[in-house]
Amino acid sequence: MPYFDAATSAPLHPVARQALLAALDEGWADPARLYREGRRARLLLDASREAAAEAVGCRPDELVFTASGTQALHTGIAGALAGRRRAGRHLIVSAVEHSAVLHSAAVHEGQGGEVTEIPVDRGGRVDASLFVRALREDTALACLQSANHEVGTVQPVAEIAEVCRATGVPLLVDAAQSLAWGPVEGGWSVLTGSAHKWGGPAGVGLLAVRKGVRFSVQGPVDERESGRAPGFENLPAIVAAAASLRAVRAEAAQEAARLRELTALIRARVPEIVADVEVVGDPERRLPHIVTFSCLYVDGESLLHELDRAEFSVSSGSSCTSSTLTPSHVLKAMGVLSEGNVRVSLPPGTSRDDVERFLTVLPDAVASVREKLGAPVGDASPSGLEELILDTLGKRCPLPVIELAKAIGRVVAGGTVTVISDDEVAELDIRAWCHLRGHEYVGEKPADQGWAYVVRRLI
Amino acid sequence: MPYFDAATSAPLHPVARQALLAALDEGWADPARLYREGRRARLLLDASREAAAEAVGCRPDELVFTASGTQALHTGIAGALAGRRRAGRHLIVSAVEHSAVLHSAAVHEGQGGEVTEIPVDRGGRVDASLFVRALREDTALACLQSANHEVGTVQPVAEIAEVCRATGVPLLVDAAQSLAWGPVEGGWSVLTGSAHKWGGPAGVGLLAVRKGVRFSVQGPVDERESGRAPGFENLPAIVAAAASLRAVRAEAAQEAARLRELTALIRARVPEIVADVEVVGDPERRLPHIVTFSCLYVDGESLLHELDRAEFSVSSGSSCTSSTLTPSHVLKAMGVLSEGNVRVSLPPGTSRDDVERFLTVLPDAVASVREKLGAPVGDASPSGLEELILDTLGKRCPLPVIELAKAIGRVVAGGTVTVISDDEVAELDIRAWCHLRGHEYVGEKPADQGWAYVVRRLI
Repeated sequence: MPYFDAATSAPLHPVARQALLAALDEGWADPARLYREGRRARLLLDASREAAAEAVGCRPDELVFTASGTQALHTGIAGALAGRRRAGRHLIVSAVEHSAVLHSAAVHEGQGGEVTEIPVDRGGRVDASLFVRALREDTALACLQSANHEVGTVQPVAEIAEVCRATGVPLLVDAAQSLAWGPVEGGWSVLTGSAHKWGGPAGVGLLAVRKGVRFSVQGPVDERESGRAPGFENLPAIVAAAASLRAVRAEAAQEAARLRELTALIRARVPEIVADVEVVGDPERRLPHIVTFSCLYVDGESLLHELDRAEFSVSSGSSCTSSTLTPSHVLKAMGVLSEGNVRVSLPPGTSRDDVERFLTVLPDAVASVREKLGAPVGDASPSGLEELILDTLGKRCPLPVIELAKAIGRVVAGGTVTVISDDEVAELDIRAWCHLRGHEYVGEKPADQGWAYVVRRLI
Repeated sequence: MPYFDAATSAPLHPVARQALLAALDEGWADPARLYREGRRARLLLDASREAAAEAVGCRPDELVFTASGTQALHTGIAGALAGRRRAGRHLIVSAVEHSAVLHSAAVHEGQGGEVTEIPVDRGGRVDASLFVRALREDTALACLQSANHEVGTVQPVAEIAEVCRATGVPLLVDAAQSLAWGPVEGGWSVLTGSAHKWGGPAGVGLLAVRKGVRFSVQGPVDERESGRAPGFENLPAIVAAAASLRAVRAEAAQEAARLRELTALIRARVPEIVADVEVVGDPERRLPHIVTFSCLYVDGESLLHELDRAEFSVSSGSSCTSSTLTPSHVLKAMGVLSEGNVRVSLPPGTSRDDVERFLTVLPDAVASVREKLGAPVGDASPSGLEELILDTLGKRCPLPVIELAKAIGRVVAGGTVTVISDDEVAELDIRAWCHLRGHEYVGEKPADQGWAYVVRRLI
């Protein structure tokens, strides 16, 4: 069945599999030991580091392997912040960073540090001038992803890196989503990556720290990986990670062009074949393999199940999906609709046929969920009201928006509908609904229970 | 070539290899996702957790998988200390814990915590009464390994766990070396393990925290592994780890009996075939597969190279081996000879033939190193001196001891030899030499350069 969730985890690249098998035989011993098996392991580790460093665009002695991309981020942020403690305790992150970055930022704040979150535009792109303006004398570190993991938007890293360098603030770049496609351009100071995002195995992250960047690893360490990643090296996986990074890079230019066409096809076709849909993310400055859209009057989990039944595996930034009850902070920061959200991220090798088939099953999948939820069909019979209050307490996304959509026709143009809701995403989705349908979002105020969201009918 | 360093990393068990291959196909997706590949991954993760928990002797919801045994220890110690912050900030560890425990203890001390290190006897075993006496009202956590990784000595865990439980102090047990042989008995609170020690793959550790133990994970976390081990699960390796733990346990009783005989053979034979050797570690209460000995007038690195040339891979706790310049803290804590140290740790399946062959090549390997270093042969011609001073400044282990051994015959019985040395291990090895040769270690005092170590000839 077509797996369209490469941005969560790419299927293992054949080269990774082959290298992993070979290294299970040749690279299981401790590279710190002096005997034959240890020396062989050391050679493999050194060669892997050289290959990875070349792909990243740094010196081998600037790069260490960690147990995951998350660990690389946690270690990189804590180490860079501690290394710059004398400069101050101010941390800058974009609002759409991976949660691992935001978790690190929250810990920093909990320890008395200060965090500035830089907002993004409706396309998910950070405003470089806002980012630059946030730089202060006491800024210890700035963090910016190379590209967003949920909507694929590429960030202005080179531009921001230049200003950071000029002001002496180190820039950490989370390159997890883009490393498969090429090195990160510009003068970054710290860079992280995650092998299972590019078709390598799980269990391997990259942390590169440029020479000259003040860096002080926090917590207990040992003599492994230059004292930056404690614990026995996962060498077979490291070998597989490095080999597959080299392999995907060799195919990157051609595959990027091919996948970009396929995601462009989805971007163009989805609004034609599904009503009330918003394609999100920057239409131009984007990764080749990711496309994300949200469907009104649909809950993400049900839509995922429908698509799964139709044999398509995608993910969703909607609330109520999987173990999370809050919507994606990325969609929230972008101010776009979070309900009925679908992220399609194509692994290398995805065929046009599969994408065409996805576009064939999507409308039925959406229609099926909408039908079950009682989504509005046609306009409600006008009642000529000036004002209407909808009590949707206890109802979860997307029900409050469905009720709003059904009710809006009952008030006159210029009239208001007030939705009382205790659903966490109500504001985001009501705002986004107004944006999509051309109505005015007037504002919100606390109600006896939950909040009252006021919408003015314009058309 | 025979690999006798299982205590560093065991070769991959065939079951682990098989399970890893299967899980690369079935378990590469994100277990937190709702689609088919994700649900399949979740099932594999759940089944692995159940299998591992059964082997450990805990409930599945008490056990999480970490990226390494080291990470399990760092997380376990920091989490247990933080969970008990109200009780106090006193931490107890044995002096022969794995360096990952001692690194955590050092960090705790650096943050204002207090650490008590419990000494061990010459066999490497912690005195339970000393351990118990160290428990205080403000003790937040006590740490004790199930068995020592360098000399194989089994620790009195059950006895200490009982007292800890009675006094309300949680006991963390590092079970890395013993999990292959059976569960840890007694009422431990936190337990850690490392898959590559039992023939599983690298990249997987275990952290079990009993229900009711106050535990507060430090640093950034996410929703994975109950919030105790952030980052994408390394599922193929987890599956392989759990499967191989079950497999080695099925073979454990029989294999333990077989390896115990082989290590007993080494323990008995080495002193017969090599002069001036000390077999270290508790002769009875020990792991089946580990035996350690130290050879006078030999440096560990040269001996390892000689054995490697003879196709045997062993490790050493001597200084000057591999990347470390200090002798093993374990040998130091035991007060035994550190020079010419060899640890033999037999992987399951080791044949008697290989062990016999090891015993055949060992004497020549030792003799060859001794010859190169000019180790003493026969007694020095007596000079009838009352007192002799040896300047060995700048000479590294084992040269100061070799010079001492050559000189002792030149003083009369009751006379003294004073060794001036700036080698870090001189005291340890001169003390151990006196113990082995029946002379008196009088004491040490600072010299103009280095230290002066005074030895009285007794026989």
